Amino acid sequence: MSPRIVEVRQNVLRKNDELARSLRMRFHASGVFVVSLVSSPGAGKTELLQRTLAEMRVTRRVAALVGDLATDRDAQRLAQSGAPVRQITTGTVCHLDAQMVESALQEWSLDAIDVLFIENVGNLVCPASYDLGEHARVVLMSVTEGEDKPRKYPTIFDTADVALITKIDLAEAVQFNRDEAVASIRSIQPKVPVIEVSCRIPSGISNWLNWLDTRMLQESRGAQFV
Amino acid sequence: MSPRIVEVRQNVLRKNDELARSLRMRFHASGVFVVSLVSSPGAGKTELLQRTLAEMRVTRRVAALVGDLATDRDAQRLAQSGAPVRQITTGTVCHLDAQMVESALQEWSLDAIDVLFIENVGNLVCPASYDLGEHARVVLMSVTEGEDKPRKYPTIFDTADVALITKIDLAEAVQFNRDEAVASIRSIQPKVPVIEVSCRIPSGISNWLNWLDTRMLQESRGAQFV
Repeated sequence: MSPRIVEVRQNVLRKNDELARSLRMRFHASGVFVVSLVSSPGAGKTELLQRTLAEMRVTRRVAALVGDLATDRDAQRLAQSGAPVRQITTGTVCHLDAQMVESALQEWSLDAIDVLFIENVGNLVCPASYDLGEHARVVLMSVTEGEDKPRKYPTIFDTADVALITKIDLAEAVQFNRDEAVASIRSIQPKVPVIEVSCRIPSGISNWLNWLDTRMLQESRGAQFV
Repeated sequence: MSPRIVEVRQNVLRKNDELARSLRMRFHASGVFVVSLVSSPGAGKTELLQRTLAEMRVTRRVAALVGDLATDRDAQRLAQSGAPVRQITTGTVCHLDAQMVESALQEWSLDAIDVLFIENVGNLVCPASYDLGEHARVVLMSVTEGEDKPRKYPTIFDTADVALITKIDLAEAVQFNRDEAVASIRSIQPKVPVIEVSCRIPSGISNWLNWLDTRMLQESRGAQFV
């Protein structure tokens, strides 16, 4: 990259960080726990979120924002859960940023939300640099993508609070090497929790929901949470 | 995006376009046919390229450049074919650009290459905007990613010369809907050729190689090609 673009990019990231900090303070003040999901296109973010919203809304007021370059397909899928959902259409922009999140939230009352999920654009690179004010970042990789992806896209795996291995119902069909995948994740971030899930079987969903509960409990010790 | 970053980005893209044009002229002058491959992470670019290099190098002098944020794993895999291969490591940059391609080619004689493959960073968004001086751009989507990806990442499908649907050996396991996937691709670019392949079975590889041959023949009518 040219020095000029590096400078402008640093400026953009600095402004994003400031806005994300103020968003996080608003989330804290309203007792909203915010979770972002990042992955390659097609790793199963929307499917996991459909199930998560359906399970969690029994006991909590959940909502979701979902980013894509084009279409509102994911918002339509997620809205079937009955939870409030809003699509962010980014045009040619390859990631969500704090400004887009703030704008999308404008007509919602944060006091009416306990847990907000933010599904990022499918992209293992660019979303890594943009803080959205979330409390936890979840990275997903599917068994079909190859065990080496964490080593090849290190930043996103380094900044995640948990790594989910999705579509484990296909593990055998693609000769997925579990040990190699976990070693690849841990080579980037040695202590990150790894949870295997499949929405189709289903499998591992309760482990994922337990992780979320525990994380929320930890967060609530420092703030006003449910 | 802020007006400032839009302006700088346009500037970067303009400079990239200029450099790509001069690269394309050099490729023409040396009779090198250049093909770039783009897809999500893990859609099977490297596996297809391994097989393609092995098959084509019987009759043609083939070479490859391969981009990743980190690791030289893909270059190692491709080098097993015996073809000259060079890794471009982009750090945090989410795409290849013409400058990276030019630098990577510096120690190679273009006159000793008939076909050059450029495997981009796994990313369905950002590579769409960067001309690399290639003659043909190939977009890959695997059956495991979901049939809707072309609608959600339109730019990359709109700028491709051919769309490959990969991992069709898994079509049944993931209940892949072929008609829906092709309709999704064609909704973006009505006349783009669609080729289904699997490197594992293998299947469709000769269709892919035939497409390459035909495309090279077309190109050679206007330039100095093998």
